[in-house]
Amino acid sequence: MTAFGRHEGTAIEELGREAIEAALTQSGLPLSEIDIIFCGHSLQGITAGQRVVSRVGSSGAPIINVENACASGSTAFAQAVMAVRGGMARAALAVGFEKMDRGPIAAAKRLDTGAAERPKGGPPVMPAMFAEVFKEHSLKYGTTVRQMAMVSAKNHGYAALNPKAHHRDEIGVEEVLNSRMIAEPLTLLMCCPTSTGAAAAVVTGADLARAGSKEPIEVAASVLQSERASAAGALHFVTEINTRAAKLAYSEAGIGPDRLDVVELHDCFAIAEICHYENLGLCERGEGGKFIEAGLSRIGGKTAVSTSGGLLAKGHPLGATGVAQVAEIVEQLRGESDRRQVPGAKIGLSHCQGFGGAVTVHIFSKTRTKGASAA
Amino acid sequence: MTAFGRHEGTAIEELGREAIEAALTQSGLPLSEIDIIFCGHSLQGITAGQRVVSRVGSSGAPIINVENACASGSTAFAQAVMAVRGGMARAALAVGFEKMDRGPIAAAKRLDTGAAERPKGGPPVMPAMFAEVFKEHSLKYGTTVRQMAMVSAKNHGYAALNPKAHHRDEIGVEEVLNSRMIAEPLTLLMCCPTSTGAAAAVVTGADLARAGSKEPIEVAASVLQSERASAAGALHFVTEINTRAAKLAYSEAGIGPDRLDVVELHDCFAIAEICHYENLGLCERGEGGKFIEAGLSRIGGKTAVSTSGGLLAKGHPLGATGVAQVAEIVEQLRGESDRRQVPGAKIGLSHCQGFGGAVTVHIFSKTRTKGASAA
Repeated sequence: MTAFGRHEGTAIEELGREAIEAALTQSGLPLSEIDIIFCGHSLQGITAGQRVVSRVGSSGAPIINVENACASGSTAFAQAVMAVRGGMARAALAVGFEKMDRGPIAAAKRLDTGAAERPKGGPPVMPAMFAEVFKEHSLKYGTTVRQMAMVSAKNHGYAALNPKAHHRDEIGVEEVLNSRMIAEPLTLLMCCPTSTGAAAAVVTGADLARAGSKEPIEVAASVLQSERASAAGALHFVTEINTRAAKLAYSEAGIGPDRLDVVELHDCFAIAEICHYENLGLCERGEGGKFIEAGLSRIGGKTAVSTSGGLLAKGHPLGATGVAQVAEIVEQLRGESDRRQVPGAKIGLSHCQGFGGAVTVHIFSKTRTKGASAA
Repeated sequence: MTAFGRHEGTAIEELGREAIEAALTQSGLPLSEIDIIFCGHSLQGITAGQRVVSRVGSSGAPIINVENACASGSTAFAQAVMAVRGGMARAALAVGFEKMDRGPIAAAKRLDTGAAERPKGGPPVMPAMFAEVFKEHSLKYGTTVRQMAMVSAKNHGYAALNPKAHHRDEIGVEEVLNSRMIAEPLTLLMCCPTSTGAAAAVVTGADLARAGSKEPIEVAASVLQSERASAAGALHFVTEINTRAAKLAYSEAGIGPDRLDVVELHDCFAIAEICHYENLGLCERGEGGKFIEAGLSRIGGKTAVSTSGGLLAKGHPLGATGVAQVAEIVEQLRGESDRRQVPGAKIGLSHCQGFGGAVTVHIFSKTRTKGASAA
């Protein structure tokens, strides 16, 4: 992945090129050996994937632009896995990228609700939705605003150790609580920033993967599920589809949540991370608030979560996020994560939720379990 | 496919629903039996596929929005074929749809050139590019403006027989020549209209396909190639990648161009159809103008081309086009095309070129040659 940040004045094609070249170098494969290319992005216009890939070269290989809102990058990765598993490609490239403006405007403008950025002077659409999620969760399980702030503080702490993160300041719980109110009770530092950046991954069969310059990491499960929000409420939507996708992934990998060493999940808002602890089975239903409070999602706890800094602090360039999560997990399993390394990490999971809706769950393993590998 | 046209006041979700329900009915499969869904569109915003599919129901099955400019629909179809061939899905659904405004604005606005609709008061971007293609082709091979007009007259004639076509008036060669000048020497009637519409196709293995209410048609080849325009000029770009994609498709199907009974090709402008006669091997290089003039691309000629009315007259809702081409070929091979039926049609081909760029070629057969089928 490239560094995430504002990148004002840098073209997305240039960031995409940087990510692709790094992935190809690690895989040991030139572009000419890539049989199919999936490009995930949401706001970059028609055939943006072709614009990006052409900066590296042209092989004629199929390029498919895929979009699934905040899960666009992970959908591209899932498609690359599908192409290799199905034998339609020996090597597939997944690229995710996004150039975003400041503030919620660019994304909200194109959300399918047709809602304006700040309907009738109220809060922006997505923070307002997650404020609802918090209220329902709090009412049902006693989750607190301070527990949300602890999530943000943890993730900002890890981002401070990640040279590629968008926001690299250590931030304390009080500072999170005292930051500007966005959608009661969500403060600014409980919301992910809009960011710009790119990431890429090469997926191949096991034999080809061993030719790379870096240790290949196995894809033990790849799940994509789609569903639109229902009338059953915001918390139901954030719960149901994610829980189902996680179960499918654990079943596919033959690996349960207790065996996970490191997890990148879709912490677009601090309450989302708390919900996803539960949805991914890292703790029991309703125990997410206690899970962060007890330090169980920290390095050295039960399961290290968002060691990259997560969407909250590493940043969230929509299409790049899902592939950047793969980069973090792969680096953790290779033992390359420096001061935020999870000691002895062997199994990892990445999870994205694109509103609109699509959920992806991928499980990665340091040891051989299946055929497809990400390098 | 739905009727193509302006459809003012009708939501794209409603048109998409109509197309999906028709495809499911023909396939004999309910939505719950579809393992994966690919939605092709270019201008419909974030997770438009989920919006459309939710009108039919929700099964949780993966939905992937794919975009490849004017080849978005055919890319969705190619992905559905890939999923079934690779054994990742027993049944896949490809949906293409687009709601477009009048005039070239909506598309040009988001083209990657950054060019305005009418740069410096000149002609619109795409017609100007194809005017260049004509000039090069004419200089090299003696192709005439009248031959282009013959293409438009032929396709409008077939559209008059197609109840689902956008423009259903019989139009003569003189009328084409005398219509408003868009980009010298291309007149209005040598350019495809912007249209609104939707189309859907179900792809399954052979066994499942036989359960449908209609005769299944085999997918004998599915090719997608990507390449950006080069400095070698407009004609080179329209020639090279299309010729290569067609050769790959013929090789995959083990079927040469001489065996084709019916072809839907990317006649976005009249000169494009002439070039694609050559690129697809329906005639020798440089003979495209003579091919139309001799009536060889008419029903009863050598190979019937654009019997639906083509992009020029049936219309061109970007994402819908590639799937609608499949609908036309499938209906022709089933003998359901009424007054525009190609007698005894057994083998057909569909071809799209998305500028930006992506080219797809699909070959279909009435008789069994391979595993995947479109119903």
